[in-house]
Amino acid sequence: MELSKAVALILLSWFLLLHHFHHASAERSVYIVHTDKSSMPKAFSSHTYWYSSMLKSLKSVAQTSLEGQNSEPKIIYTYDNAFHGFSAVMTKAELQALKKSPGFISAYADDVVTPDTTHSYKFLSLNTATGLWPASNYGKDVIIGVIDTGIWPESPSFRDDGMTEIPARWKGICQEGEQFNSSSCNKKIIGARYFNEGFRAQLPDLSIGVNSARDVDGHGTHVASIAAGNFVDGVSFFGYAPGTARGVAPRARLAVYKVLWNGGVNSDILAGIDQAVADGVDIISISLGIRSSLLYENPLSIASFGAREKGIMVSLSAGNRGPSVRTIRSGIPWAVVVTSGTIDRWLAGTLTLGNGKVITGWTTFPARASVRNLPLVYNETLSECSSSELLSGAPEQSIIVCNLTIGNTDFSSAMNNLPESNVRAAILIAEEPPIFRSNLFPFPGVVITPTEAREVINYASRSSAPRATIDFQQTILGTEPRAAPALSDDASRGPARSYDGILKPDLMAPGVSILAAYYPHATGPRIGKNIFLSTDYTLISGTSMACPHVSGTAALLKAAHPEWSPAAIQSAMMTTANPLDNTNQPIKDMAFDYTAATPLGIGSGLVDPNRALDPGLIYDVSHQDLVNLVCSMNFTREQTQTIIRSSHNCSTPSADLNYPSFVALFSFAERGRTLTRRFQRTVTNVGDGAARYRVKLETPENTTVRIQPQTLVFQKKYEKKSYVLTIRYKADIETQNRDGSLTWIEENGKYRVRSPIMVSAGADNFD
Amino acid sequence: MELSKAVALILLSWFLLLHHFHHASAERSVYIVHTDKSSMPKAFSSHTYWYSSMLKSLKSVAQTSLEGQNSEPKIIYTYDNAFHGFSAVMTKAELQALKKSPGFISAYADDVVTPDTTHSYKFLSLNTATGLWPASNYGKDVIIGVIDTGIWPESPSFRDDGMTEIPARWKGICQEGEQFNSSSCNKKIIGARYFNEGFRAQLPDLSIGVNSARDVDGHGTHVASIAAGNFVDGVSFFGYAPGTARGVAPRARLAVYKVLWNGGVNSDILAGIDQAVADGVDIISISLGIRSSLLYENPLSIASFGAREKGIMVSLSAGNRGPSVRTIRSGIPWAVVVTSGTIDRWLAGTLTLGNGKVITGWTTFPARASVRNLPLVYNETLSECSSSELLSGAPEQSIIVCNLTIGNTDFSSAMNNLPESNVRAAILIAEEPPIFRSNLFPFPGVVITPTEAREVINYASRSSAPRATIDFQQTILGTEPRAAPALSDDASRGPARSYDGILKPDLMAPGVSILAAYYPHATGPRIGKNIFLSTDYTLISGTSMACPHVSGTAALLKAAHPEWSPAAIQSAMMTTANPLDNTNQPIKDMAFDYTAATPLGIGSGLVDPNRALDPGLIYDVSHQDLVNLVCSMNFTREQTQTIIRSSHNCSTPSADLNYPSFVALFSFAERGRTLTRRFQRTVTNVGDGAARYRVKLETPENTTVRIQPQTLVFQKKYEKKSYVLTIRYKADIETQNRDGSLTWIEENGKYRVRSPIMVSAGADNFD
Repeated sequence: MELSKAVALILLSWFLLLHHFHHASAERSVYIVHTDKSSMPKAFSSHTYWYSSMLKSLKSVAQTSLEGQNSEPKIIYTYDNAFHGFSAVMTKAELQALKKSPGFISAYADDVVTPDTTHSYKFLSLNTATGLWPASNYGKDVIIGVIDTGIWPESPSFRDDGMTEIPARWKGICQEGEQFNSSSCNKKIIGARYFNEGFRAQLPDLSIGVNSARDVDGHGTHVASIAAGNFVDGVSFFGYAPGTARGVAPRARLAVYKVLWNGGVNSDILAGIDQAVADGVDIISISLGIRSSLLYENPLSIASFGAREKGIMVSLSAGNRGPSVRTIRSGIPWAVVVTSGTIDRWLAGTLTLGNGKVITGWTTFPARASVRNLPLVYNETLSECSSSELLSGAPEQSIIVCNLTIGNTDFSSAMNNLPESNVRAAILIAEEPPIFRSNLFPFPGVVITPTEAREVINYASRSSAPRATIDFQQTILGTEPRAAPALSDDASRGPARSYDGILKPDLMAPGVSILAAYYPHATGPRIGKNIFLSTDYTLISGTSMACPHVSGTAALLKAAHPEWSPAAIQSAMMTTANPLDNTNQPIKDMAFDYTAATPLGIGSGLVDPNRALDPGLIYDVSHQDLVNLVCSMNFTREQTQTIIRSSHNCSTPSADLNYPSFVALFSFAERGRTLTRRFQRTVTNVGDGAARYRVKLETPENTTVRIQPQTLVFQKKYEKKSYVLTIRYKADIETQNRDGSLTWIEENGKYRVRSPIMVSAGADNFD
Repeated sequence: MELSKAVALILLSWFLLLHHFHHASAERSVYIVHTDKSSMPKAFSSHTYWYSSMLKSLKSVAQTSLEGQNSEPKIIYTYDNAFHGFSAVMTKAELQALKKSPGFISAYADDVVTPDTTHSYKFLSLNTATGLWPASNYGKDVIIGVIDTGIWPESPSFRDDGMTEIPARWKGICQEGEQFNSSSCNKKIIGARYFNEGFRAQLPDLSIGVNSARDVDGHGTHVASIAAGNFVDGVSFFGYAPGTARGVAPRARLAVYKVLWNGGVNSDILAGIDQAVADGVDIISISLGIRSSLLYENPLSIASFGAREKGIMVSLSAGNRGPSVRTIRSGIPWAVVVTSGTIDRWLAGTLTLGNGKVITGWTTFPARASVRNLPLVYNETLSECSSSELLSGAPEQSIIVCNLTIGNTDFSSAMNNLPESNVRAAILIAEEPPIFRSNLFPFPGVVITPTEAREVINYASRSSAPRATIDFQQTILGTEPRAAPALSDDASRGPARSYDGILKPDLMAPGVSILAAYYPHATGPRIGKNIFLSTDYTLISGTSMACPHVSGTAALLKAAHPEWSPAAIQSAMMTTANPLDNTNQPIKDMAFDYTAATPLGIGSGLVDPNRALDPGLIYDVSHQDLVNLVCSMNFTREQTQTIIRSSHNCSTPSADLNYPSFVALFSFAERGRTLTRRFQRTVTNVGDGAARYRVKLETPENTTVRIQPQTLVFQKKYEKKSYVLTIRYKADIETQNRDGSLTWIEENGKYRVRSPIMVSAGADNFD
């Protein structure tokens, strides 16, 4: 997972972990080995024996190269579902010897992974009357596998009221462990397993925490409840965002695979995904981030490829390394990569000045603070709020103005200084968006913009006895004070480091200040200097929270259209996504002064579940298409086989995947030249019967786009039609990013099948 | 009102007020004048003209004795319901002149008054199935007048769902004023008036706050909702004591008379009560304290006498000046004086040590603090918790033990020091009961007893890595950890300063940590150093909260028995009150190491509404009986007439009031002597038809008690029988307090009519 705000406490562990991985070459460490199962000698009844035999043959190598105990390589996991292979503890010398074994494809060192909420269903227009919820029976019987920190099974979000019996096709188990027994599962949580062999082999000195699928972090519980939490009344974050919590697919099942401990490693993640595939999940939701951007080493890439082959859609969080471009590491062409946007909910404090003026500020101060008719103090020196010494000069029992746009004081240091003062509340002037989504607000106050602040400063400066009141625990829905969604400033941006021939991210979903279930014993928001609170439901922000919204939507689509392939589900979500915000303007980017975001930020736009139910056309992809794509990537044979496995062949490589978006990049070396990119696409009519579509183009600046043909005529359902899109564009470094779109519009206006077109300076221009 | 914890913020105003009243003799101030209305010359069509004329006749006096402006006496109020008279601004010279006017009885300077909470209905066994609630239709149509700080009409406790139309007999109004209009009243709040002429005349420089019946303190709202609040679901004090709030008489009406501002004066209180009588209330509830203990100057005494004559029962709070004896100032024989006891609810934090031991401590920390598996630190030096400097040496993120039984640190200073440290929570060792009822708990922690602390200290000292967890927001009902009720340590005790011939207090009711509605903009509990919260419902302790429980019970009885006199209602409550706690042991006194309380502390015991519905016998009192009592008090004619008014005569003085309790005092001068007291009582059979009662005596130590006759035989309902009780006792200063009881037991066991017998050293031994 990409690091979310809420998991800061495990940073130290991560640091130790990362440090640990700079190991000496003679030391034993964990390697992940990919094999060609077709090469398995017939003498072996199972792959397990085969892999054991391989390692035994290394024994002599081991004993000559190392002294003393632990001298044998040891298998940690075997993988046989998402891909073929195993992970094992061995030395580099042993690994070298292993490479000579028949059936060996590739091996890479295990690596650490890093960690990346509920009015959001309403924001996505899900409703009980019409659309995807009733059409999908709320995701009934679809199984979502969540690869994360486990689950807190006692959360009311995982009660199984209203859930039917577990379907017979389910092959998973409720694995018992520390503080987790068979009764921890029910008809909602139908599977729970945990994987830490890799972690323990690699990091024997680090505590794994609770040795079971029990979540003692909160991240896994949060994402699982976003995807498929049951209905829970009376939920709020300390009075903010009150209402009935529910997941996107409230009747879908959950199978949880705990792979993250006080840290996590690739081998465990691979084991989790491999098992999820074996157990029979329908959708896999992964809100975590991998350090490697190499598709043949990134476990999410490898395992997702295998899952897709078995008809399982994988959704991934884009990461929270933005706003720089090329910060998406796992830009995997065969997974849905999800970025994070705001929702139309403003957690507010209402500031009322003595002159009657009312300003709606932002606050998440986690209690109903009493700040009523108190003296309002604006003093330029004090307003830096830069130290508790400075603030000790502020009048007692007053409301002070802190201007975070001057001096060097940021929100968090002001929040640390204020509890040591004698003031009662603060009005914080700030422009930085990160403040507006923090769930950490330890001192009573509201954040307002510099524009709003003018009136406050005027009043405070000119009135003889200025006073003010702040009302807390306000929740404001709609287009005010900010249009939504807006792209989260810290969301990772494309082009993807892993592969830039496919536009990533694919979709945006709600990921800012999302309220969902949590580990109730977590050390939650702080009040004052040293008082910490805990909560059953919390607000977290990040692409981690966006991803399960798409996983849940995919589950609903799977329930409504059991016959759809992962690519079809993905296409339906992408071609119906909304590039406009709730004021019908292009979605803005929080990171760049709320200017319009590009598809490198938002992909196709905000997922729109109800429209995805009935997309008109879909861009389908066969598994061979994905193989052809990998084969076009100029990887070595071993690298290629690591992803596609030896059963597939590379006779028809093609980079022109039938994808519902378009990206044309240019490199620094091509600057000033005029380039041409040609894309062929085939769309399948999934509407009812005959239909006629006409093209509508929004051409990117300084670019020409040609579509051939411009009309697609379908006689019947499931009929396929192809078209060619040709982009002619100038490699213009001055205008790095240009975007447009292609929309197939059904002549009666019933369907609009949209694909973004992105022309951009490529990866090499940004490093 | 006696000063409750919640009104500490207005202490400064009170101080100013009290100061103000030490005025120079030449200054104008407010005097309350009692008149003999029968002396009013026929020429005057109303008392108002008469009083004006009286004052006009003083004009010459005024002009000779004073120079310049404001030279005329000015009427503030006229009183004509609870008693006859007026209050006016005048000089001492003018007052002297006034005394010569025909019809003048007495006058005294106006004086300041000082200010005195819902599982409690369950503790009082009120239930929907049987007893007083269904029998009284929940107090339907009975009107309770509340003399206090006004009301917050928007509180959900004052919604009128389920209330019927206002009865035609109601003569009150909804007086408009600042932030209060006619829509502020409804079928629950049927009357609202405010009185501050006296306050403004006396203290023109002090702000009155909001000039209407709107409560901007919280006290009035709290007591009104205790007496007659409607049903409100989902109420708690920051997670403690959660449930459905309701008053004792949820279908009774409220008429509020706001007489308390940023302080209050007698003349306004008199005006409030006088108006309540005129408006037609059935019960008057007064939770406030008067400085004067002279029955002929104490406005509660004077006004209650008049109210009783009109059939209106008055209940008064005993005051919070305990635990010393003789701290009841308004020990008024013609009002029900109510003291405060605990309820069977423990607001708890659960302390779990690393060794598994669980201790239930007390806490009201107003949030769900996260204190889980943290290092537990016991260090004798640190444990004084006496300064933030000392605590800065405490390990960060730890739970520290603070021993408040050593050194000079009390609860409140420890709570001030801890938020400045880096510790996360505190375990506070204390024996003092006040801590156990504070709603102020600004730092996460639990209070435990020294006995409970031994195990904690042992574990913390001997374990190599001691750890602990504290769970907050726990609510424990029943007999553990403390039996209930126990007498509140700060409740005022008898004998009454005002008159000690009648045992006071009369009754105990719940008054410790009572949850009821509140002024939502009040500055409520603090968190940390400088963060204040507000709340719609709060916990307050004091006899102020006990009083409306009895007012509500009286309203229920009035609804069930419309024909009962105030004395009958009082008798029913007293003879059925419970002197035992919920472990069937005598009610204990918090102030004296939980030894048994005496009737000087608890009166007849805890009010038991269901038993009061059907008491068997009642001790009734006519108004002439009360007149006879006053006439026996050795007052001057003027003092006597101030109370009884000139229409009554003193031909049959008698101190032997037909009261359902017995007190025999002795003075220091009588020490060593053996004394005899004879009481005559008449009981009325209010059971159905014939009944036979036998006496049961618990004789006080060193005392002989004789009852004549020992059997009472009634042939029919409403029949009266008399008996004589004679006490012979030694004036034994060494054994100051001895108590016993007389119980008339109906031979089939249906009724038990109990009266406490108290033998005690009298008032003069204590000063």
